[in-house]
Amino acid sequence: MSADWKNFRADPRRIEQRIKELSQFGANREGGVSRVAFSDADVEGRKYIRSLMEKAGLKVRVDAAGNIIGHREGRNPTLPVILFGSHIDSVPHGGNYDGDLGVLGALECIELLNQQNFVTAHPLEVIVFSDEEGGLTGSHAAVGELSQEALQIKSHSGKTIGEGIRFIGGDPDNLQSAKRNPSEILAYLELHIEQGGILEAEKINIGVVEGIVGINVWNVTVVGFANHAGTTPMNQRKDALLAAARFVDSVNYIARSIRGRQVATVGTIEAQPGAPNVIPGKVVMSLEIRDLEKSKIDLVFEKVKESSEKIAADTGTTISFAALDVTAVPAPTDQRLRKIIQEAATDLGLTTKLMPSGAGHDAQNLARIVPIGMIFVPSVGGISHSPREFTTASDMANGASVLMQAILKLDENGL
Amino acid sequence: MSADWKNFRADPRRIEQRIKELSQFGANREGGVSRVAFSDADVEGRKYIRSLMEKAGLKVRVDAAGNIIGHREGRNPTLPVILFGSHIDSVPHGGNYDGDLGVLGALECIELLNQQNFVTAHPLEVIVFSDEEGGLTGSHAAVGELSQEALQIKSHSGKTIGEGIRFIGGDPDNLQSAKRNPSEILAYLELHIEQGGILEAEKINIGVVEGIVGINVWNVTVVGFANHAGTTPMNQRKDALLAAARFVDSVNYIARSIRGRQVATVGTIEAQPGAPNVIPGKVVMSLEIRDLEKSKIDLVFEKVKESSEKIAADTGTTISFAALDVTAVPAPTDQRLRKIIQEAATDLGLTTKLMPSGAGHDAQNLARIVPIGMIFVPSVGGISHSPREFTTASDMANGASVLMQAILKLDENGL
Repeated sequence: MSADWKNFRADPRRIEQRIKELSQFGANREGGVSRVAFSDADVEGRKYIRSLMEKAGLKVRVDAAGNIIGHREGRNPTLPVILFGSHIDSVPHGGNYDGDLGVLGALECIELLNQQNFVTAHPLEVIVFSDEEGGLTGSHAAVGELSQEALQIKSHSGKTIGEGIRFIGGDPDNLQSAKRNPSEILAYLELHIEQGGILEAEKINIGVVEGIVGINVWNVTVVGFANHAGTTPMNQRKDALLAAARFVDSVNYIARSIRGRQVATVGTIEAQPGAPNVIPGKVVMSLEIRDLEKSKIDLVFEKVKESSEKIAADTGTTISFAALDVTAVPAPTDQRLRKIIQEAATDLGLTTKLMPSGAGHDAQNLARIVPIGMIFVPSVGGISHSPREFTTASDMANGASVLMQAILKLDENGL
Repeated sequence: MSADWKNFRADPRRIEQRIKELSQFGANREGGVSRVAFSDADVEGRKYIRSLMEKAGLKVRVDAAGNIIGHREGRNPTLPVILFGSHIDSVPHGGNYDGDLGVLGALECIELLNQQNFVTAHPLEVIVFSDEEGGLTGSHAAVGELSQEALQIKSHSGKTIGEGIRFIGGDPDNLQSAKRNPSEILAYLELHIEQGGILEAEKINIGVVEGIVGINVWNVTVVGFANHAGTTPMNQRKDALLAAARFVDSVNYIARSIRGRQVATVGTIEAQPGAPNVIPGKVVMSLEIRDLEKSKIDLVFEKVKESSEKIAADTGTTISFAALDVTAVPAPTDQRLRKIIQEAATDLGLTTKLMPSGAGHDAQNLARIVPIGMIFVPSVGGISHSPREFTTASDMANGASVLMQAILKLDENGL
């Protein structure tokens, strides 16, 4: 039980088979999943993962935030835990790899260790964070930063986040118990699909993540005046949807007009009352801005706000912003973990590239209390948050093997 | 039973009281009603009207399209019916006067005749058309033009129109029985609030409607590509909501840039999948264009289509149009009925103005088979399709008195 751990390799067929099995829960017609957090499909998917954990001999618990944690004893119980995992909830009309690979890749590592009867020095923990897509809910709780306000937000399941946590077996009244003690965790590692097209385009096997962009989100409300679409002349309207339309266009223009990699998106829109024969009196939209630098996010937002004032004045409406989450600052990964991941990949004969993560991940929350590292594998066509999301079995296995080797290096040498 | 009918005057308190009573069914928090067709509130409102009809001695039936018809015998059963009424369904978040006044004003006429023991020569019929706001459903059926396709359309109640008709007591399998024979109807008269601000601004009591605008409606679908809002650079997006935003802006611009009174409105919008962290891949909107001239509607639509092609090319999306109802041509009122209404108002000492109706009404369907006349009363602030819709009791009574006198003139002199 020592030297040959460098030969532990993930099994592409097992991972692919499990991806298929997990994809049945919340399967959508387009070939992906709509397994939004706190839905029945989410509960079924979690049950499936839990059964895999139990079969693999992990001691499983669900914390107060609904995170599933599978514990494997180490040789030295006084050492801190090596924590790794991801999530299995999806966006509406999502795909079969985002999050899922990180969870099944983590379980693949446990299977490999079991096959080899290998016990690490450090205890290992596989974690499935709850409601990643709805606002990194489970990892917010793990670092003690899930607010009471967040519990009131209505999730895609129709339930509030608080109700949802209870629905999946958590206890929203006792969230402080889900908070992890940093001294008990050596590091957090997460395997994930890239969700962009860079690795595939450049034919690189593994992305070593240098940091996760900050994601700031607002609710934007336009208030005009609802009136009859037939009897209200064009020049007497206070059309909230007209103002919203100009707002969407201006967000896009501003994000493009500044140098850099920042992105800004309006992903949701609701017009009220919402009838073809009524001029919309109110529109609610989302606004999301991302960048590796907080100052860039702030700059884009300032320009958007400035522009919205002009739009409001021109259309006889008001436009207001309610911050949903503007606390998410960019999260750099730990330099030592980057090096360990880089070496693990190189030892496996895989090519690597240091790259930012444009997507948010639970790792960014963990970064506030423990060192984090992230491993990316290629996404075909860069497609993500879509049923057409796809990663080959070989790339998935490469990622899981790198995760396995990084864990074992970390276990042997520490940080 | 003859000379003194010129003194019949509507009772403002009774009308106002009944408006209040009817407003309880589907009352919304804002002080109006959300009594969309085929909802439980609609059924309750209809039950209330039916009970008023029965108490007033009308012989009540519900036809296959769900129209409620209250019949009052005339002295001469071989004469054609004088038909008058409106509707009681509302838009979502609507007000307490649109349609309701026409129905309660019609019932007020019956009450006046009953009080005076007056029997007209012609039979009278009060009609409550079903689902006016959802597409003039009941009046389409009354003229034999409710299509099978229309029955499949999903209404605001959640039911299809076909299901809704059954829900309120109609028989969607037997719609031809709801078709009226033109020779059995002398004329159709409708009292309605103006829904615009002209009468109030010009301090005029009664609008004599010269015609009803044609209303053409399309579903507009933008197809882009749903992708991750963090990992997809701004210049690689096919953002369906960006294209939709530019479309909404262009519709407004085009409608303003042509001389005339035409209006064009986007009242509904839905972005899919609809999450802050996903670039919308698909957007569905409504497009509605109205004018008193069909050629003007066609011109606006052609320009909108032209503009949409450029927007689609610029944004990497496709924009397509599905006609929902493009058959509604402008409907002039009958010149003889205009004169009768005008004289009735003048005899009552009320000021009048000849004006178009920017809103659609069941009368426009009836116009295809019988002479129609419409009476408008002022809307405070021109507000309509809104909980803030308001007409004074005195103006409502003026309208009902004009309707009463027009019916009696028509009854005495024919057309």
